[in-house]
Amino acid sequence: MFRHHSQPLVTAPAETAVLALLLAEGPLSRVELARRTGLSSTAVTKAARPLIDDGYLYELPPERTAPGAGRPVNPLAVAPDREYFIGLKISADRLFGAVCDLRAGIRATAVRPLGECTPEAVARLVAELVDELLDTEPAFRDRTRHLGAAVNGDVDRESGRLRHSGLLGWRDVPLAELLSASTGLSVTVENDVRALTVAEHWFGEGIGTGYFALVTIGAGIGSALVVNGRLLRGAYGVAGEVGHLCVDPNGPLCWCGARGCVEAIASTDAILASVRHDTGDGNLAFDEVVRMAREGHPAAGGAFARAGNAIGVGIAALVNLVGPERVVVSGEGVDAYDLLGRHIQEAYAAHAFGAASRCPLSLRPLPWEEWARGGAAVAIQALFPQYTATPTAGSG
Amino acid sequence: MFRHHSQPLVTAPAETAVLALLLAEGPLSRVELARRTGLSSTAVTKAARPLIDDGYLYELPPERTAPGAGRPVNPLAVAPDREYFIGLKISADRLFGAVCDLRAGIRATAVRPLGECTPEAVARLVAELVDELLDTEPAFRDRTRHLGAAVNGDVDRESGRLRHSGLLGWRDVPLAELLSASTGLSVTVENDVRALTVAEHWFGEGIGTGYFALVTIGAGIGSALVVNGRLLRGAYGVAGEVGHLCVDPNGPLCWCGARGCVEAIASTDAILASVRHDTGDGNLAFDEVVRMAREGHPAAGGAFARAGNAIGVGIAALVNLVGPERVVVSGEGVDAYDLLGRHIQEAYAAHAFGAASRCPLSLRPLPWEEWARGGAAVAIQALFPQYTATPTAGSG
Ligand SMILES: [Zn+2]
Ligand SMILES: [Zn+2]
Repeated sequence: MFRHHSQPLVTAPAETAVLALLLAEGPLSRVELARRTGLSSTAVTKAARPLIDDGYLYELPPERTAPGAGRPVNPLAVAPDREYFIGLKISADRLFGAVCDLRAGIRATAVRPLGECTPEAVARLVAELVDELLDTEPAFRDRTRHLGAAVNGDVDRESGRLRHSGLLGWRDVPLAELLSASTGLSVTVENDVRALTVAEHWFGEGIGTGYFALVTIGAGIGSALVVNGRLLRGAYGVAGEVGHLCVDPNGPLCWCGARGCVEAIASTDAILASVRHDTGDGNLAFDEVVRMAREGHPAAGGAFARAGNAIGVGIAALVNLVGPERVVVSGEGVDAYDLLGRHIQEAYAAHAFGAASRCPLSLRPLPWEEWARGGAAVAIQALFPQYTATPTAGSG
Repeated sequence: MFRHHSQPLVTAPAETAVLALLLAEGPLSRVELARRTGLSSTAVTKAARPLIDDGYLYELPPERTAPGAGRPVNPLAVAPDREYFIGLKISADRLFGAVCDLRAGIRATAVRPLGECTPEAVARLVAELVDELLDTEPAFRDRTRHLGAAVNGDVDRESGRLRHSGLLGWRDVPLAELLSASTGLSVTVENDVRALTVAEHWFGEGIGTGYFALVTIGAGIGSALVVNGRLLRGAYGVAGEVGHLCVDPNGPLCWCGARGCVEAIASTDAILASVRHDTGDGNLAFDEVVRMAREGHPAAGGAFARAGNAIGVGIAALVNLVGPERVVVSGEGVDAYDLLGRHIQEAYAAHAFGAASRCPLSLRPLPWEEWARGGAAVAIQALFPQYTATPTAGSG
């Protein structure tokens, strides 16, 4: 991944394991750290020492587990304010930014409308946004070195290039380089759905979680999958493309060139186009379509039903193939959850195979701050190059 | 997994890594082993010693890489005849057995028709088949301790229970226990498609391969996926169910209860039912349908076209979601490849998303010996409990 004038914080496996576990799970005793990481107590103590010296970890006051239950233990904890991270979400019309601490806690936020959407214009606006964010507290400016940008499309995280983004209309943009030049920060770029999944994985469920899937709905339909504790990247950089599963051979053409994709039926644009077509009113806006559907208008209700059904069939395909522990559905489209939810759940239940139907499907809102926090999570993760490298060995 | 009166061969990580690598890749020098496993040379030598003492490994004669290029090296090699393994495939009408050596080389084979298909009758017949196989060479009887059974359906490998098999009509059968009691061998049971994938993964492509998918077509449509070097098992035991992806909301009902599954369109029974329906001839056999299609009969040709299309759309879904390096399609259905292949490839190409279309799709025959060898591969793998355990840590 592209990192401008910076060093990874930890490279030794033991330090990486200790710090990552404390980041994800909060304070733990050395004994507990040893048990969870499989390291010896001596190795844990040795790994923690430089991180304590640098102020990333500190010792909590001693606590006894029970009266008279042996010698007191000092749990180790991450010092969240030791370093800050800028998280960024670049959407087609707005720029969302957040300052997060080392445990991905949101400390400050800012939003800007995007007028001109060229990469250069965006890089300039990012620099302004970052300045505004870093000005909110002196400590932010002193202790921020990394920026993580979450962006729609096909991203090569290693090189920091955005290969292609349908929503932004960009192709082969050296985004990490541009943002690094405009902000002076070290920059990591990641696909927005994957970034959100990293935040969920490291700072939501915890890095021990083996299997889960996050599906986002709205302007696009995407997903990211964590399998055996690792984000699935795909041998050719493509994975989790639930939006481009074919669920109807007679469905509408998708922008990707195929027919009957989930996204061609269920994106906000697809729902809007369907209702405009059925009503003959080419000027309808999406919020009007939502209102019509809530008021019982058949064309609008039918479009949401077909959309929910396509999303549910797509999620069932994901669950039948990959077998996650749970699936979270989130995104802008969740504003219309009352119109989609039942159809998603019904189609999912009808098409989940056997025991796969035990995989719970939950839907929850996704405020824009969460997208920006996803960017910050990716920047935090960049401190641990080992965790983002592609593994090679192992077996079935 | 259920193992009757037996001990794993290796439990230490270093021994496991060394032996697994030699099994998969053939002779390697200690230097090469150290490089590939990440162990020190001392650790490699220490790990190899007990395996040499037990006769599992031996030293090849010294070889010089080039004249005068330093001291000679003795590559280490697996002694394939140190131990033999029975591989078994239980199909609805036949029992296939093989004796394989430690590197999954097939050394003897046998087949029996299955009359009565109750678990108890099958267990008795397995004992006869095993006796016949072990009688072919005295060394087989002396040096065979493990049997691996590959069987259609939902298998809990840990407990050795077959939870459910649609093709066999069995539900909740303690298969490992039954076969162990009837044969006196230690028994591992695995889903047949997963067993085949283990054979392909360990003894075909090698255990370093990160990502691949095997799709089987025929009486059922299944797949198994290797992700980050590990067989995907699914949090609820379900994964790789490409046969039960919905590819047509108006498609036929599937035995699983859902509508439009790949299997409901593309299994041999589904193709046969479609042609019987369209021609009004309820007595047609599958080989007649194949002949008719080859001779240009429209109903037969159409059924194969729809089947190939459904399989191709299903494989595209798998590739778009999981992102394997390559996909191998194999199975009984491949006998009719001339009728399916073009449609599979066309539908796959039409629905693979972006760079995912670079994932090559190859089709190859699957003789029944390969299924039995899959069973043996699972039995060999049972020597390495570490490799089959579910990992927990890691990250995105
Ligand atoms: Zn598409
Ligand atoms: Zn089905």
